[in-house]
Amino acid sequence: MTTDTTAVPPSAVPGWNHEADVVIVGHGGAGASAAIEAARAGADVLVLERMTRGGGTTALSTGVVYFGGGTRVQRACGFEDTVEEMAKHVRLAAGRHADEDKVQAFCEGSVEHFEWMCALGVDFADSYVAEKTTHPFGEETLFYSGNEKAHPFVEHARPAPRGHKPARPGEVGGYLMEFFLRATHEAGARVLNECRVERLVQDPATRRVVGLVADHDGTTVHVRARRGVILAAGGFIMNKAMLAEHAPDLLDCNWEAASPADDGLGIRVGQGAGADVANMSEGLAVNAIYPPGTHCMGVLVDERGQRFVNEDAYVGRTTDAMLRRAGGRCWLILDDEIHGPTQAFHKVAAVEATIADLEAALGIPDGQLVHTVDTYNRFAAHGEDPLFHKAPEFLRPLGEGPYGALDCTTAGSIYAGFTFGGLVTRASGEVLDPTGTAIPGLYAAGRVSAGLPLEGRTYASGLSIGDATFFGRVAGRTAAGAAPHD
Amino acid sequence: MTTDTTAVPPSAVPGWNHEADVVIVGHGGAGASAAIEAARAGADVLVLERMTRGGGTTALSTGVVYFGGGTRVQRACGFEDTVEEMAKHVRLAAGRHADEDKVQAFCEGSVEHFEWMCALGVDFADSYVAEKTTHPFGEETLFYSGNEKAHPFVEHARPAPRGHKPARPGEVGGYLMEFFLRATHEAGARVLNECRVERLVQDPATRRVVGLVADHDGTTVHVRARRGVILAAGGFIMNKAMLAEHAPDLLDCNWEAASPADDGLGIRVGQGAGADVANMSEGLAVNAIYPPGTHCMGVLVDERGQRFVNEDAYVGRTTDAMLRRAGGRCWLILDDEIHGPTQAFHKVAAVEATIADLEAALGIPDGQLVHTVDTYNRFAAHGEDPLFHKAPEFLRPLGEGPYGALDCTTAGSIYAGFTFGGLVTRASGEVLDPTGTAIPGLYAAGRVSAGLPLEGRTYASGLSIGDATFFGRVAGRTAAGAAPHD
Repeated sequence: MTTDTTAVPPSAVPGWNHEADVVIVGHGGAGASAAIEAARAGADVLVLERMTRGGGTTALSTGVVYFGGGTRVQRACGFEDTVEEMAKHVRLAAGRHADEDKVQAFCEGSVEHFEWMCALGVDFADSYVAEKTTHPFGEETLFYSGNEKAHPFVEHARPAPRGHKPARPGEVGGYLMEFFLRATHEAGARVLNECRVERLVQDPATRRVVGLVADHDGTTVHVRARRGVILAAGGFIMNKAMLAEHAPDLLDCNWEAASPADDGLGIRVGQGAGADVANMSEGLAVNAIYPPGTHCMGVLVDERGQRFVNEDAYVGRTTDAMLRRAGGRCWLILDDEIHGPTQAFHKVAAVEATIADLEAALGIPDGQLVHTVDTYNRFAAHGEDPLFHKAPEFLRPLGEGPYGALDCTTAGSIYAGFTFGGLVTRASGEVLDPTGTAIPGLYAAGRVSAGLPLEGRTYASGLSIGDATFFGRVAGRTAAGAAPHD
Repeated sequence: MTTDTTAVPPSAVPGWNHEADVVIVGHGGAGASAAIEAARAGADVLVLERMTRGGGTTALSTGVVYFGGGTRVQRACGFEDTVEEMAKHVRLAAGRHADEDKVQAFCEGSVEHFEWMCALGVDFADSYVAEKTTHPFGEETLFYSGNEKAHPFVEHARPAPRGHKPARPGEVGGYLMEFFLRATHEAGARVLNECRVERLVQDPATRRVVGLVADHDGTTVHVRARRGVILAAGGFIMNKAMLAEHAPDLLDCNWEAASPADDGLGIRVGQGAGADVANMSEGLAVNAIYPPGTHCMGVLVDERGQRFVNEDAYVGRTTDAMLRRAGGRCWLILDDEIHGPTQAFHKVAAVEATIADLEAALGIPDGQLVHTVDTYNRFAAHGEDPLFHKAPEFLRPLGEGPYGALDCTTAGSIYAGFTFGGLVTRASGEVLDPTGTAIPGLYAAGRVSAGLPLEGRTYASGLSIGDATFFGRVAGRTAAGAAPHD
């Protein structure tokens, strides 16, 4: 990126083209949530959206949101959940360096956040899908969206399904965002589309952020933010140079699960005002081997014929292992009975009558796949998986041939990805400098920040939108309640 | 870290207690090299060292330096090497996001850098150690210090030994640094010990760094840098909070291979003036399973009895796999003939007459270690390792029992580590902001920067000191040649 994002002093501002109490950069899930809450708190709010229309990456997603602790849907479907059990799982799902303040706030506020989203008009159905899936394909809402029932997570918290998808068929991030965009307007927030924010305006003496500089449809505009600026501009999966420098593992992703605006500009704008960044190397990579859920009964092997992960883990976890343990060279071995089409239409690398023939066809060294499948079958017959601890519901010896191998290599299949690294924030949404001090007047939420979810190998679907909308709301309230800078 | 490292404006400086053309923070390998070159270029140089005496992490190291392209020692020992072949390997050894400018400069300048170090008085012997080792234990100099002969590196560049250890027995980083400290003084640079740098002084209008604020033995001092400040203050392996936030993988290290001053303060000081950081998640972790080199003939297995890396790779690469592939749960299986004491005095987890008994003793699932060793032996008898491509010289079937298992778990053995992440620099030593613009008057070298070596899994011993001293010299010359700020 060649744009200079260094903050400029107020003395460099020729005059303010726009003013608001709270100025929000980005109108995706995080930005809209911030706008709604800030405006409802009485603040004059202006949202600057870089694209022709709001929606962001949330609008391009499945629309799954992670809620728990006893939502209406969970209760109606007969699942018991508590804040404590949810927190036990979310703490692990967030990653090794989970921010305990964020974990607690997110879980304690989850039922209220669910109800808030329902009140926007989003329709969640009191229905549950039992099949292992990345999201319900029909109009059902509730499903297990993460590692709750998989080793080793299942040993640390009582499982409950917490993936909530709005009750519309297919991928419904667009449906979800329509309610957010509408609510932004109904709350009285103003929106400028095609407005790309390039620098913050910052008082060099106090470090207070007092506004920003943007390109609005080709014209430079200066926007004053009396109470604060909230950066909600998304991550950086679209920026290959930033990936190479900060998250080279994610260069293996060949499909960006993000808005075109997720090029890291928001992160750079924050850094230009002295913000710290963290967790820049991490993200979510997904090569979805399920649904069908029966695929979790398959055997995922690397080029040595060795298994390397429990196949029933969430796809973010299996994919992390596919990249970091198997080096992007792996296949899912299935028999006819459990094989079905995947969403990503995995190609079939080989079909053979026997495992020995399949081993030869895949170029796996002599005897290794045969041993792996023999071992797997021998233990699975007793409902055991001493190597990787797959759950009993997915343990079944592979049946009679023929056997197929789905191509899960990086060269031959889809690895979707987005980033988890970004600006360092407190649970309040305040952005911190490298010494842990809040930069006055600057807030952030969503993937522009190092938020609640920090690692793909522990992630659950819905955590990113859950985090973006929950902490977007918090940031909106915090900024609206801040003292004006004059 | 609670210290506020935000740069202060010149207006906040009550007066300068010290002045120099070039002010260098840290008197380890990078700082001393910078001081020597800057002073020899005619600059008035002041080095600020936080400890009671210079030396830094280099003084605590084995003293191995990575040189190549045809050094006097390489030629005397009969090894042909060229800048091109060296660059082919160093490009891979630096990691996936190798900085091509740094790779080229480092390799093209390597013979000259070797001769420069000899001219300081460091004694390198024209002798070669063929055994696979982390460093020569005696007075020999030359050895293979990295992955040059191991898969997959051996397929990409003609191997040559490039590890050069000064010709003194044992670990000789202290010996090496004595010449650097002496040369610093002889070149005319001044040194203040017990001087901890806490902030830079930076003109808010031009962003030019013009000095710094330090604590000198309990008193706050302001130091003016007419031409530039060079940060050479080391990495952050000693700062557990920074590790948790930026490099959680390195929390598995239970032995810090660094000076107590490597707590990241230098990185924070640079960030306080707007510098960008990169590669913060990476570092070197080392659980040295060799020497003896015969240990590379052993079989390294995880808790499933599976191999996961070629055992003859450099210890940084095997250790990366031990942590990230085996989850820190692994053992090295040896027979009596190849077993010997390691430097880290690995405990013996079990000794049994047969592999089946060893498998049971280690709690490895039934039949898995037996299969792994059978497979290994079957192929090794033909000089082959189709699974992990260990080099033929280390392929030998395990012999008769008894067999032993060395405890290589994180719970039971030594994992030494240091960090590779830090300030973003150009090959010139200039420090960059997040938009890729150089911050005037600010330079960095060594582990305070994201330098030449970026990944432990590709690293070779000697690259860190090689990088620190080579690019320390470059930074010294660049800063000495910069225009004074007044």
